[in-house]
Amino acid sequence: MQFSVRQFFEPESHTYSYFIIDNDNKQVVIIDPVKETYDRDKKFIDELGLAVAYIIDTHVHADHITSAIKLKNEYGGKLVIGAGSQINCGDILIKNNDEINFNGLSIKAISTPGHTNSCTSFYIEELKMVFTGDTLLIRSTGRTDFQQGSPEKLFDSLQTLFLLPEATKVLPAHDYLGRTSSTIGEEKTYNPRIAGKNKEEFVEIMSNLNLSYPKKIKESLPANLNCGDNKWILY
Amino acid sequence: MQFSVRQFFEPESHTYSYFIIDNDNKQVVIIDPVKETYDRDKKFIDELGLAVAYIIDTHVHADHITSAIKLKNEYGGKLVIGAGSQINCGDILIKNNDEINFNGLSIKAISTPGHTNSCTSFYIEELKMVFTGDTLLIRSTGRTDFQQGSPEKLFDSLQTLFLLPEATKVLPAHDYLGRTSSTIGEEKTYNPRIAGKNKEEFVEIMSNLNLSYPKKIKESLPANLNCGDNKWILY
Repeated sequence: MQFSVRQFFEPESHTYSYFIIDNDNKQVVIIDPVKETYDRDKKFIDELGLAVAYIIDTHVHADHITSAIKLKNEYGGKLVIGAGSQINCGDILIKNNDEINFNGLSIKAISTPGHTNSCTSFYIEELKMVFTGDTLLIRSTGRTDFQQGSPEKLFDSLQTLFLLPEATKVLPAHDYLGRTSSTIGEEKTYNPRIAGKNKEEFVEIMSNLNLSYPKKIKESLPANLNCGDNKWILY
Repeated sequence: MQFSVRQFFEPESHTYSYFIIDNDNKQVVIIDPVKETYDRDKKFIDELGLAVAYIIDTHVHADHITSAIKLKNEYGGKLVIGAGSQINCGDILIKNNDEINFNGLSIKAISTPGHTNSCTSFYIEELKMVFTGDTLLIRSTGRTDFQQGSPEKLFDSLQTLFLLPEATKVLPAHDYLGRTSSTIGEEKTYNPRIAGKNKEEFVEIMSNLNLSYPKKIKESLPANLNCGDNKWILY
């Protein structure tokens, strides 16, 4: 089995990070790594002797600081983030339908704005998996009330994801109830925010969530605009 | 894809539960369900319209109460637990090399005592997965200092698991650092308690862990000897 995927959890922000591993070439693509779990992730990379090919952030996170720049400084690799993220530290500002070729494995970017203006999902047809960031969560969705969020755009992005094969495994950036994955088919049918809802109904739901802001938003946003480098930021 | 596996997490006791789903026949085998997350699990079963075929506990847990009996009372299904568990509520007291035939999928019991005297791992060759309970954890093992635990027996059980193909996915009952899976090959090589250790060294390590007892041991053990039924137990 050349490619395998490993999921990790960071409990404070309830974030899932993913390691897509090329076991033959000992390389890895890392999605949404978190600063708090850098030491754990480093140990894993070092034990397996992996070279880091790409570090992907699905979007500019508001609830935790990415360890993208820390990983890049240690291991190299190219930082990937959606075009329009207004960050100046990305190596690849990825656009809709762009593909990352990871030793023959195609990782396809699907632009899915709505939670933020530049959220990107990543689809691996060969592995029947989609990494949905904060766009599509398990029985939920990302919020749309800051960072140029837009419930209308999120609705359209969810419809785009729902065009993927129903058996496609959904691997989100978060879950708050201990669920680790879902499928496109399940979310189309059972996601209470979007299943059977038209755009107007969805916008109504999203506009009335009344969520409090993420605890770490004030430090996360400026740091993540620097790919996780917060050494110049005055709190 | 007829069979798929879904992993769930219970944060208080850091327990992983597993749902092995037969998508064609809408049936499920549940491994190590936890009372605290019964409502979440029930919602998942109901949404997908699953019939419960088997409910497996890998052992008599000391850190949480199983929801096995609650699930059985609601959905039916056969309770499976290792022979020698001293419980009187199991439908199948499973022994080494016994197989559960789940609509053509062979789930093979591997007796792996050591953490408790009747711990059982479950191997699905077709899916290249082994559910290791508290026998083999990620870069760790179950403890051996109560419930007829035996570091000598655990050493032998780990050697048995290490005979499985190296690419076999290891799905344990717990992880405390947000890791969700491993492989037999990785654990043989990098598990600090067992990799490169002989039985004497392993026993020495296990005898000096100095762990405090699980917070819920006093309520968990008597309840789990009744498959999770604690209504007659006086605290």
